[in-house]
Amino acid sequence: MLHHEIQSEDKILFFKKEYISEFVYGGIDGAITTFAVVAGAEGASLGITVVIILGLANLIADGFSMSVGNYFSTKASRDNFDRHKAREYWEVEHLGEAEKAEIREVYEAKGFRGELLNQVVEVITSDKDVWVDTMMKEELEMTKDGKTPIKTASVTFLSFLAVGSIPLLAYIFAGLDSGIANSELFLYSSILTGIALTIVGALKSIVTERNIMAGIAETLLLGGLAASLAYFVGDVLEQVFM
Amino acid sequence: MLHHEIQSEDKILFFKKEYISEFVYGGIDGAITTFAVVAGAEGASLGITVVIILGLANLIADGFSMSVGNYFSTKASRDNFDRHKAREYWEVEHLGEAEKAEIREVYEAKGFRGELLNQVVEVITSDKDVWVDTMMKEELEMTKDGKTPIKTASVTFLSFLAVGSIPLLAYIFAGLDSGIANSELFLYSSILTGIALTIVGALKSIVTERNIMAGIAETLLLGGLAASLAYFVGDVLEQVFM
Repeated sequence: MLHHEIQSEDKILFFKKEYISEFVYGGIDGAITTFAVVAGAEGASLGITVVIILGLANLIADGFSMSVGNYFSTKASRDNFDRHKAREYWEVEHLGEAEKAEIREVYEAKGFRGELLNQVVEVITSDKDVWVDTMMKEELEMTKDGKTPIKTASVTFLSFLAVGSIPLLAYIFAGLDSGIANSELFLYSSILTGIALTIVGALKSIVTERNIMAGIAETLLLGGLAASLAYFVGDVLEQVFM
Repeated sequence: MLHHEIQSEDKILFFKKEYISEFVYGGIDGAITTFAVVAGAEGASLGITVVIILGLANLIADGFSMSVGNYFSTKASRDNFDRHKAREYWEVEHLGEAEKAEIREVYEAKGFRGELLNQVVEVITSDKDVWVDTMMKEELEMTKDGKTPIKTASVTFLSFLAVGSIPLLAYIFAGLDSGIANSELFLYSSILTGIALTIVGALKSIVTERNIMAGIAETLLLGGLAASLAYFVGDVLEQVFM
């Protein structure tokens, strides 16, 4: 009954909410990173082929490193939980009295006193699983991350590639076979990236459970500022070096 | 006493362990991302100025977007906790009987029965803070993230910039005023990046509490594969487009 309630709260549109979070953050990172390459190259007037080559190289390398990094950190967080849990089992086994005293402290802090406190401590420490579970939540304040490393990494990778390729679309499809000016391609790329960030920013508000407009504004502002920085750096360095 | 124990466990070399984690992941991401630009440009034979311009533009834009994104997501996770907690306070206030029944379920699952169960439920629900705290940990399995958004973002940004600039050092200091070949600069950049990833990979094992060799191997492999992908994409696209 309790578990049912939690699960239904955490599922939205058949997706587990936690994977929407990977989709959103992977997508935002992909779009912003790739658009920064586009903006930096445009600021330095580097030409269409440089944008496409370094944009794609960056997209694939960053998407790979972000998602594999994500795999390792999700795995590390789960392993860390398991290791602490194993240590608590060991302590319960070998340092029973000290661990029992800690359960007593925990329940004393909750307002239990006298004979009732004794009885509570007895019940908790009569079942090793309950005992360790209490130590994990109350002493270490750790709860297990329910995410599967391989799933978080896959969703991040696919989202990074899909959303992150959007800033390059105009260059790939229009840039090579016609006389469209660089500045016009950059405009199209900016518009497409803006639309993508708006959609992902709106989805972000599902994850953060906040106002949808705040999610969109935050995401657009972040992308706009990162791209402006890249453009500015490209522009300044062009004058220095070229 | 309990809190003292937890804090001392989480501090290493005067740093809170959680901020070592930001340093490590910011640094790894910075070095891998920047080295991917270097490798992609080398694969496509794009020249030293392109490496420096897009490397720096990417470093600053990515460092900014990663750390600000980090700020928002740490903040969102804390806000999410606070919102759920406020909701539990509301439920305790307005749906007291249902929430009391949930506390009963939680403690029944721990092995409490009969009169003792009644008494435990009475004590827990006699203090609203204890009641809500129990709902947060036992029903929602949520514990508060102790990290401060502005600190995690700052550490991430500085680490991203500091470690992420290492792949560019050879190009910036040796590339512009001498006749060193591109391939030689790429070799120096690879060696410096390898050293940086080795150090940060070793630090990562402090965060993950795992074998130091595994931390180094994992980090070097990840950086090497990401750079190889970027090099390969650059190389293939050079043949297609140039």
